This record gives sequence, structure tokens and C-alpha cells, in this order.
Amino acid sequence: MALVISDMSISLDGYVTGPNDSRENPFGDGADTLHDWIFDDPTEADRALMREGMDSTGAVIMGRTSFDKCVDMWGENGPMRGVPVFVVTHHEPTERYPSAYTFVTDGVAKAIELAKEAAGDKVVGLHGATVMQQALPLGLVDEIFVHVVPLLLGAGTPLFGSLGSAITLERADAVVTPRATHLRFRVVKTEA
Amino acid sequence: MALVISDMSISLDGYVTGPNDSRENPFGDGADTLHDWIFDDPTEADRALMREGMDSTGAVIMGRTSFDKCVDMWGENGPMRGVPVFVVTHHEPTERYPSAYTFVTDGVAKAIELAKEAAGDKVVGLHGATVMQQALPLGLVDEIFVHVVPLLLGAGTPLFGSLGSAITLERADAVVTPRATHLRFRVVKTEA
Repeated sequence: MALVISDMSISLDGYVTGPNDSRENPFGDGADTLHDWIFDDPTEADRALMREGMDSTGAVIMGRTSFDKCVDMWGENGPMRGVPVFVVTHHEPTERYPSAYTFVTDGVAKAIELAKEAAGDKVVGLHGATVMQQALPLGLVDEIFVHVVPLLLGAGTPLFGSLGSAITLERADAVVTPRATHLRFRVVKTEA
Repeated sequence: MALVISDMSISLDGYVTGPNDSRENPFGDGADTLHDWIFDDPTEADRALMREGMDSTGAVIMGRTSFDKCVDMWGENGPMRGVPVFVVTHHEPTERYPSAYTFVTDGVAKAIELAKEAAGDKVVGLHGATVMQQALPLGLVDEIFVHVVPLLLGAGTPLFGSLGSAITLERADAVVTPRATHLRFRVVKTEA
């Protein structure tokens, strides 16, 4: 069964975007370097992690807010070259989008179910803060992969926010590159 | 001149204590394992980091809230065996405390000035979230040392909170032990 992995770049103070993020400014103010390990100046170790993520991911889940901000940037193939994307939303958009995108109106658990079917034996990637914060307390997240970038954003969208109860993790991997500290954790125990 | 280093254990979601922290429960709910790398089950690498921190620190600064919670636990020598502690507070306490503790009523900048004098060529350690959040935007913090523990607390006192503006860091060191990921950053640029 496909593992569900939250996979996000974060600033040291835990933000996934800076303030004033929008369709025109998808990363938000001050967050230009947040994705340097992917786009701008990756080292060989960064590239290997990115390739591994690309190769292992069979479906992506994201929230409507992330989708609206990022779809222009990604275009018709989505963030991962044709990997199906399930967008959790309250209402189907009226605009038509490419077939890579499926809109799910009955919650994150349903989106995860559909994404797991689509992913087969590959991984389901949770992209964005909202879907992770919804899925984690439901016990639906298997791993959390963060790429901690040497930057304090000071404001913006926090990856974890206030989850409300403690969750025990186990660090599964740590890769230190000049651009980021890549930390992978298994979710051990979710206190309901 | 003494470097000023914020040195704190944090959960992956950035909290330094769990919820309901108090004099009787100084670490807060769910945060028992946050200091395992120091107290409970350190590895040799953890011990070496702790010793290095002890040996290099010439003065400690903390806020009144942290002080009130922790003083019973520490006793008369303070957190670091006689290293002078400067407590930033609005009002001098009426209770008498051991001479290791000095109360500073005119702000964190003054406390840092006094602590630097006391530290000589050793380091000034900032302990607690409030003093760090006050000192960092003033450009008074040279390094940030976090010990990231595999745990989500979900609530409590955040180390960084909402600083309000972006600050560029440079990762100076990364030590991965089974208990924690120890990351040291230099503060490169504070946008005023």
C-alpha cells in the first residue's frame, strides 16, 4: 500500500511560504531561496534527493490554495511531469484544467484514498500545509520529509501550525547539503 | 567580544515547551523527550556537544517566565554550574535568589551588554524564546543553535513565533545524533 509522505521545504522557523503569497508571487515575500536546493543551485546530493522524490512519487495531493497559487507555474503536467494531482477543495472550479488535475470535494481522507489507488506501489506526496495539517491528526500521514533551509521568514504559512496534540516521530534519515538539511521522519504515534 | 548564541532544544514544529508549562511542569505537556539528548539518554556525540556548550558559555540570559519556571529545577548554581545568569524582567522579584542570578529591568539589550562583560571571551547563551525574539530583530544575536528533536508538540511556546521580517542565515554546523539533529546557524542579515 502506498505510503503517504508530507514533503516540503521549510524555513528554520517552519514556514512553507513567506507573507503575501499569491498566484503572481507563489513563494511569498523573502522566500526566493527556499527552493534553491531544487531550482537554483542544487548540489549533487540535492539533485539525487529530488530525483528520488520524482521517481518514487505516484500521486500528489494538495489543497486548493496551493493549487491556485502554483498552477500557472506548473502548467499542464503538474509539479511532477504527469504524476496525477488530487486537489482537495470545497467546490469544483468552473474553469477547465488539464487532466493531470482531479478535484476532490469530499475531504482529504477521500483524496488520500483516491491518490493511493492511483499511486499503486509508489508514494503519495502531500504538498502544502493545509492538507498535511488535516491528514496528520487523522493518522493518515506515514512520513514527514522536511528540507530545512537556512532562512527565517518571520511570517507566512507555517507547515505545522498548531496541531493541538503531541505526535511522536522517529528520524529515518538526515542528509546535510550546503543548501538545506533534509530530514525524514516516520510518524510513530498520533495521539487522537 | 563575546558571541551571543541562542541555544535551544525544539520540537520539529518549533516549540521549546509543550502546553501547560509551569513551575511544577517546566517542560510542558508532552515534552518529556525534548531534553533526552541532554538528561535521559545522551549518546557520546550529544555529551560532547553539551560539554562544549558548558565549557564555552560565560553568561546566560533568560526571560522572567523561563526563570520562574526553571529556578526550582536548577537551584542555587543556575543551569550551568555557577555561570552568571541575567534575567530580563519588568520588576525585580521581592523574593531573594542566589547570587548567580542578576535581574535586569531595562531591557534585553542592557542584559546582553552586562552578560558580554561578564562572559569575557566566552559565549553569551540566550535561553528561552522571548529573549531571542526580542534580541534577534535588534541585530543582537550572532548565532542560532537548535537541537531538533523528533517530536511534534502541537502547541506550546514557539522558539521563533512570528518575527515579522525575513532573516538570512548560514548553516555553520550540523551534527546528527540518534536523539536530535543539532544545527548551528550564523545570522547573516537582519532586515530592519
